[in-house]
Amino acid sequence: MDLWANLDDLRRRQSEKWRHYPADVLPVFVAEMDSTLAEPVRAALASALDNSDTGYAHPEGLPEAFAGFAGRRWGWDPQPATMTLMPDVARAARTAIELVSEPGDAVVINPPVYPPFYEWLEMTGRRLVSNPLRPGPDGWRLDLEGLEAAFAGGARVHLLCNPQNPTGTVHTRAELDAVAELAERYDVRVVSDEIHAPLTLGDARFTPFLSLDRPAARTGFAAVSASKAWNLAGLKAALLVGGDEVVGEFRRIPEDATSSTGLFGVVASIAALNEGEAWLDELRAALEVNRRWLEEALAPLGIGYRPPDATFLAWLDFRGLGLGDEPAAALLDRGRVALYRGLDFGPEGAGFARFNFATRPEVLAEAVARIAAAL
Amino acid sequence: MDLWANLDDLRRRQSEKWRHYPADVLPVFVAEMDSTLAEPVRAALASALDNSDTGYAHPEGLPEAFAGFAGRRWGWDPQPATMTLMPDVARAARTAIELVSEPGDAVVINPPVYPPFYEWLEMTGRRLVSNPLRPGPDGWRLDLEGLEAAFAGGARVHLLCNPQNPTGTVHTRAELDAVAELAERYDVRVVSDEIHAPLTLGDARFTPFLSLDRPAARTGFAAVSASKAWNLAGLKAALLVGGDEVVGEFRRIPEDATSSTGLFGVVASIAALNEGEAWLDELRAALEVNRRWLEEALAPLGIGYRPPDATFLAWLDFRGLGLGDEPAAALLDRGRVALYRGLDFGPEGAGFARFNFATRPEVLAEAVARIAAAL
Ligand SMILES: Cc1ncc(COP(=O)(O)O)c(C=O)c1O
Ligand SMILES: Cc1ncc(COP(=O)(O)O)c(C=O)c1O
Repeated sequence: MDLWANLDDLRRRQSEKWRHYPADVLPVFVAEMDSTLAEPVRAALASALDNSDTGYAHPEGLPEAFAGFAGRRWGWDPQPATMTLMPDVARAARTAIELVSEPGDAVVINPPVYPPFYEWLEMTGRRLVSNPLRPGPDGWRLDLEGLEAAFAGGARVHLLCNPQNPTGTVHTRAELDAVAELAERYDVRVVSDEIHAPLTLGDARFTPFLSLDRPAARTGFAAVSASKAWNLAGLKAALLVGGDEVVGEFRRIPEDATSSTGLFGVVASIAALNEGEAWLDELRAALEVNRRWLEEALAPLGIGYRPPDATFLAWLDFRGLGLGDEPAAALLDRGRVALYRGLDFGPEGAGFARFNFATRPEVLAEAVARIAAAL
Repeated sequence: MDLWANLDDLRRRQSEKWRHYPADVLPVFVAEMDSTLAEPVRAALASALDNSDTGYAHPEGLPEAFAGFAGRRWGWDPQPATMTLMPDVARAARTAIELVSEPGDAVVINPPVYPPFYEWLEMTGRRLVSNPLRPGPDGWRLDLEGLEAAFAGGARVHLLCNPQNPTGTVHTRAELDAVAELAERYDVRVVSDEIHAPLTLGDARFTPFLSLDRPAARTGFAAVSASKAWNLAGLKAALLVGGDEVVGEFRRIPEDATSSTGLFGVVASIAALNEGEAWLDELRAALEVNRRWLEEALAPLGIGYRPPDATFLAWLDFRGLGLGDEPAAALLDRGRVALYRGLDFGPEGAGFARFNFATRPEVLAEAVARIAAAL
C-alpha cells in the first residue's frame, strides 16, 4: 500500500484534520499525518475488531513493547514497572505535573511550544514561567542562562518538549545534561514530553531525558507514545514513564487514567513498537524528501524556514511578508490553506505559522501553491 | 454471527475483563459484555480502518445520531447544539460537576452506586453527601425525604445514576419529577449519568432527566454514550448534554476533552445509534433470558437477587451465607469467579457483590456453578 493516502480518501476521513474546515480548504494545521497505517498495525487492529475486543483497556504488553523499542532505537532500557498506561501524552504530562507539584507552583516552559502546554498549566492551576528558545545558527535552542534564572526564581517543574513542537529542535545530550544539572541544583522536577522522539530526521540523534546518568533523570518523568510516529492519535494510548526513583508516586494516579485509555490504542501501539520499525524508517525517508523539497519551494517565496531535525512540522516565518502577526488567518482567508496559528505557541509566534508536511508530494505542492497565491 | 462470543475467543481478548485476572478465574466483574459487535458497528470500524482514519476525533454526526436515537426511543428531542463530545461518561460527569460547582461544594449521590462516583468527587475536590437508596418491595428506590434533607443541608449538585448501577433501578418519571422539584426549590444542579439508558429490560420505561418539563431539567446535564449498550467502552466516546439553559457554560470546557476522545469511538457510536437498534433489541431479549434464568439458579443457593429493570448487572445479596462483608473475596478465592466487590459501591454494599450476566448461557451457568461451589 502507498505510504501516503490520496486526496479522495483523505477527504472521506472523519478525523479533525479533515473535518475541521470546509471542503474547499486544504488542511495542514493539526499534527495528524496523511499516511496509511503500517501493515502490522492494521493487522492487529483488524484482529481486535474481528474478535469484538472493544471493552476497557488493559496495559498488558505495552510497557514491554516500549522498552524494547527504546532499547533498540536509543540504547535506553526503561523498566516496565516504572510505566503507567495513559490515554494520551496530554494526560500523562498533566498527571506528572500534578504528582510533583501543587496548584500555584511555577512550571517552566520553552516557547514557542505546543499550545496545549498552556492549557495543561491552566487546567492544573500551575503558574507559567516562560523561558523562550533562542533562535540562532543552529536553530531554536534552549536558553540555559534564562533557564537557570527561572529555576533560581523558584520553579518546581520544567515541562520540556523534546523533540520540540513546533521548531523540530532535537535537544542535544549536552543541553539535556545541562538541564539535568540545573534541575538538580535548584530541586526542579523535569517532565519531558517525548511524543515526537521516533521521528528524528537526517542524522539528528534523540536522547531520552530519563536515560541520562543524573539524579534529575531518576526523579524525572517522560510522556511517550506511538501516536505521532504511527499516526494513532485518535486511538488514545500513551505511557507515563517515571525515573527509577519515582515508582512510589505512581500509586497516587487515579484509576480513571487507565479506564480513559483506548483499547485499540494499546493494541495498535504494541504492534507499532514491536513490528513497526521498517514502516517507521520508510516514513522518515519520505519526510526527509518533503523537508528538503520545502527548502527549495519556500525560499523563493521569502518565507523563513529551517528544516526541522525531527517531526513533520515546519515553523514558518512570514515576518516581512506583510501578513501581520497572524499569517495563518490571511493564508486561510486568501489561500484556503489552513496552517496552525503561530501566536498559539506563545507570543514568540507572532508572524509565524506551523505547517504540517506529512502528506503526499502532490498535496504538499498544492499547499505551497495556495500559500504562494495568498502572498 | 452469534450474539455471544465463545470462551476461547473471549480468553484471547486484550480487554480489562479478560486480562485483569489469571486464566483460571472466570471474570464477571467489570461492565464489559461478552457480545460480538453489531454488524453496522463492525462495518463502520472496518471502513475507518481501511481508510487509516486514526487521527484526532471530530464530533461530526454524533450529536445528531444521539438526538435521533433519543427521539425514537424516548420521545426526547435534545438539541445537538447542547451536546459536547467527551471521551467517556466519567469525563462528561466530572466536567458537568466542575461547570456547576466549586471545590469544597457538596454533591449528593445515592449509594450503592458505581464506585468511580466516589473517585470523581475526590478528583474534583467535591464533598460527598450520601443519600442511600432504600430497599423495598419495588427494589432499591430513591429516598426522597432523605434527598430533601441533603438538599436543604446545602448541596450544590445531585449526581444521579439512571438507570442505577449496580441495582438496575430505573427511576420512574414520578420520582424524577420529585427530584426536579426539590432541585428547583433548593437551587441544586442535577447531573444525570444515563449510560445504561438503552438497556431497559421487560416493560421498564426510561425517562431522560432533561426531558422533564421542569426548570431543573433546563439547567441540568446528562452524561450519555453508546458505550455500555453496544459494548464500546474501550473506544472512548460519549456526550455531555446540557439542558436548554446551560449552553453558555459549554464554552468553558477545555479543548482537551475533544482531543482525548477516541475517533473509533465516535465512528462506532454513530453507527450504533443510527443503525444499531435491531441488534440492541436482540441483545435486550438475550439479557432478558439471562436475568430470568438467574432467578431460578440463585434462589436455591440462598443468594438474594432482584432482577434488574435495566442493565446486565445483578446486585447479589450474600448476607446470611457466612461470607462476611466481602463475599467477592471469598468467591474469588474459593470459587475462582470474579465478581465486583460490594463495598466499593458504598458501605451499603457490605455482604453484596455485583455480578455481570452479559455472557452466553454456558458461561453464565459456569459462573453460577463456581459461586455454588464456593458457598
Ligand atoms: C509535543 C506534543 N505533545 C503532546 C501532543 C499531544 O499528544 P496526545 O494526543 O497524545 O495528547 C502533541 C500533539 O501533536 C505534541 O506535539
Ligand atoms: C453508571 C456508570 N457510569 C459511568 C460508567 C463508565 O462509563 P465510561 O466508561 O464511559 O466512563 C459506567 C461503567 O460501567 C457506569 O456503570
